[in-house]
Amino acid sequence: MSSQEHEVELELRSGAWIEGGGVTSPRGFCAAGVAAGIKKEGLDLALVVSDREAAAAGMFTANLVRAAPVRWCERVVAGGRARAIVANSGNANACTGEAGERAAESMARLTAAALGADPDRVLVASTGVIGHPLPLSPLERGIPAAAAALSRDGAAAARAILTTDTRPKTAALAVEVGGRTVTLGGMVKGAGMIGPDLRLPHATMLAFLTTDAPVAPAALRDALRSAVDVTFNAITVDGDTSTNDTVLLLANGAAGGEELAAPADLALLRAALTALARRLALDVVRDGEGATRLIRIDVWGARDDADARRVAMTVANSPLVKTAFSAGEPNWGRILMAVGRSGAALDPDLVSVRVGGLLIVERGLGAGTDLDALRAEMSRPEAAVAIDLGIGAGSFTAWTCDLSEEYVRINAHYLT
Amino acid sequence: MSSQEHEVELELRSGAWIEGGGVTSPRGFCAAGVAAGIKKEGLDLALVVSDREAAAAGMFTANLVRAAPVRWCERVVAGGRARAIVANSGNANACTGEAGERAAESMARLTAAALGADPDRVLVASTGVIGHPLPLSPLERGIPAAAAALSRDGAAAARAILTTDTRPKTAALAVEVGGRTVTLGGMVKGAGMIGPDLRLPHATMLAFLTTDAPVAPAALRDALRSAVDVTFNAITVDGDTSTNDTVLLLANGAAGGEELAAPADLALLRAALTALARRLALDVVRDGEGATRLIRIDVWGARDDADARRVAMTVANSPLVKTAFSAGEPNWGRILMAVGRSGAALDPDLVSVRVGGLLIVERGLGAGTDLDALRAEMSRPEAAVAIDLGIGAGSFTAWTCDLSEEYVRINAHYLT
Repeated sequence: MSSQEHEVELELRSGAWIEGGGVTSPRGFCAAGVAAGIKKEGLDLALVVSDREAAAAGMFTANLVRAAPVRWCERVVAGGRARAIVANSGNANACTGEAGERAAESMARLTAAALGADPDRVLVASTGVIGHPLPLSPLERGIPAAAAALSRDGAAAARAILTTDTRPKTAALAVEVGGRTVTLGGMVKGAGMIGPDLRLPHATMLAFLTTDAPVAPAALRDALRSAVDVTFNAITVDGDTSTNDTVLLLANGAAGGEELAAPADLALLRAALTALARRLALDVVRDGEGATRLIRIDVWGARDDADARRVAMTVANSPLVKTAFSAGEPNWGRILMAVGRSGAALDPDLVSVRVGGLLIVERGLGAGTDLDALRAEMSRPEAAVAIDLGIGAGSFTAWTCDLSEEYVRINAHYLT
Repeated sequence: MSSQEHEVELELRSGAWIEGGGVTSPRGFCAAGVAAGIKKEGLDLALVVSDREAAAAGMFTANLVRAAPVRWCERVVAGGRARAIVANSGNANACTGEAGERAAESMARLTAAALGADPDRVLVASTGVIGHPLPLSPLERGIPAAAAALSRDGAAAARAILTTDTRPKTAALAVEVGGRTVTLGGMVKGAGMIGPDLRLPHATMLAFLTTDAPVAPAALRDALRSAVDVTFNAITVDGDTSTNDTVLLLANGAAGGEELAAPADLALLRAALTALARRLALDVVRDGEGATRLIRIDVWGARDDADARRVAMTVANSPLVKTAFSAGEPNWGRILMAVGRSGAALDPDLVSVRVGGLLIVERGLGAGTDLDALRAEMSRPEAAVAIDLGIGAGSFTAWTCDLSEEYVRINAHYLT
């Protein structure tokens, strides 16, 4: 961590978070959420709009089956600029063929018409059931209604993108960068079909981030990639990578001043963006389908960071580890089992494992830990596993949730 | 499939399976199962013994954290010959350090002493909780008791290796090879921590196979590898690869005659072994923790067989696909999601998917299938998914089970 990043950490601890903030906390952004009738009931259409064209960056699912809106967004962010994001819940517009492509384009066109903008500057996202045609008439009514309802209150938009989520997830913070106050905000949805793909940096849910910082598209893209890699790409609920995963970031420069270009300023922006993305990513895990606790998995002593990530994500995705945590079952052998099958270089006789404050495995050997104490550590709302491979300097931190009967109930009856 | 293999398939259909058969069906094998006191109650120690030294082959977990008995067995099978298998349930003797190595060796020594055999010719296996010392006194009492109870009835041995299994799993068959009747038998345990590792051919549970065929160790090893690759290595319950997975095969030659060496004879033996291993492997999936149905996943049209295996195993391990099947939830988009994240080469617009007799996705596009009909297909005790990638000639078949609330209940309270 650089000294600039430390500065941001300290500032965040001393209260730069904006209570109740979200995508409209940065200057020049407004939002709306309406009930367009795509879902049987409730809010299902969100708009996030900048009052001027903004630099835009995006990261998308590595799943080769990509929804139509993902393909649309990839074209828009290649241009580096956008005015608005339109998103619906209730239908993923994935596996919908040419009609799906046309539906994604219609969402952009209807939004552009309502705002007086260029359709090629409108980002589109969808989430919900896969393989059902996205009906156009709710969009034709809903998008103009949402445009008419735009305001500085981002609450309805944050609710309109939810599916199996139990609550909206937003955050915002303000930091001093290059002599001015820069604000960053965001909203996210995601509770299931949340999993990493290790081949590429990519996003794992719908996350819309905004900032009033003045920054060029290329620098924005770099900052987003670096933040996503250790936040949205370090969490899992079920390891299933969606067809629609999308993270979008708009920077409209409304904070004023010259474009940020000094390395120190960009490092500060990146640190703030990472802090924001981490808070939103952990909220996704906390709200994971059926989740009763957040589990942090720190790995160090690996051959390299990539190996540490392999170990952390294999443990984080192990059904047996996750079910053990759901009931505080002190069956710690399952953690070692997952470490061993991760594909990372390791010497079993050098591996040590802690759960919370308890040493469980010391250099490959059970430490004879009291099982009642272990049960208590595993039952915390925020549990922690630390794994030291003892062979190198690689490290990584991942977050997961437990696997409960409720996860099965939710996913066995999603459509019904 | 060669003409010899077809011959075996036909023979098996016409009744070569031995009703109620198991490891003692081949000539020259006996077995016993006793309650040694490793578990709180019930049978927990099994012996399988050949009346003469047998050719031996084994395949073991690819997990880098390997239990002491696995390391012991690797040394024994390197010698190519064995007299007996001793196995306990209730304790995996994994992550138990040097004391664990000594316990595995003691199991071999006690067995050798009871049989008048060489300890280096005794194979050892353990299954149960990881990381707890394996107590020696139950073994010191139990192994001589098991040796005294050896008989041609394999039923107690098959029960003594079970953990969360709900029933013993055995099979046997007889085929004509090289002018004589050769019998093969087997028993298997496994219901959870059943997952594939794609890096190496390897086994995924405890499976003990016997035959009275006369065959050299090298040929036996080849036959075992080829059979395991499409059977035990093609099934999954939860994708978690155990520290103790072991498949052992003993061939004692009691059927008489010269060692089998002609390619046609060895092909017949391999086909019979594959049929036996498939029957036992599918029984493991049917008895998967909390499973209510067996799901067969056929993939073809892949770039190559390795890619087809990737797709089949990714679908087979997807929590969202598996939960959908637990309630017959017709959310078929999850199958495409899993195909897309498998890492296999694919063009989404060429992918077609069938569930049972129903076409669900035709060249990347939802086929508008009736959801009630799909629900019925997904609710069959033996459901089937067929995925055509449409780009090559690679194929693979995998088997999985559904993920139910009962899986979570079982694994959240394994120790308690």
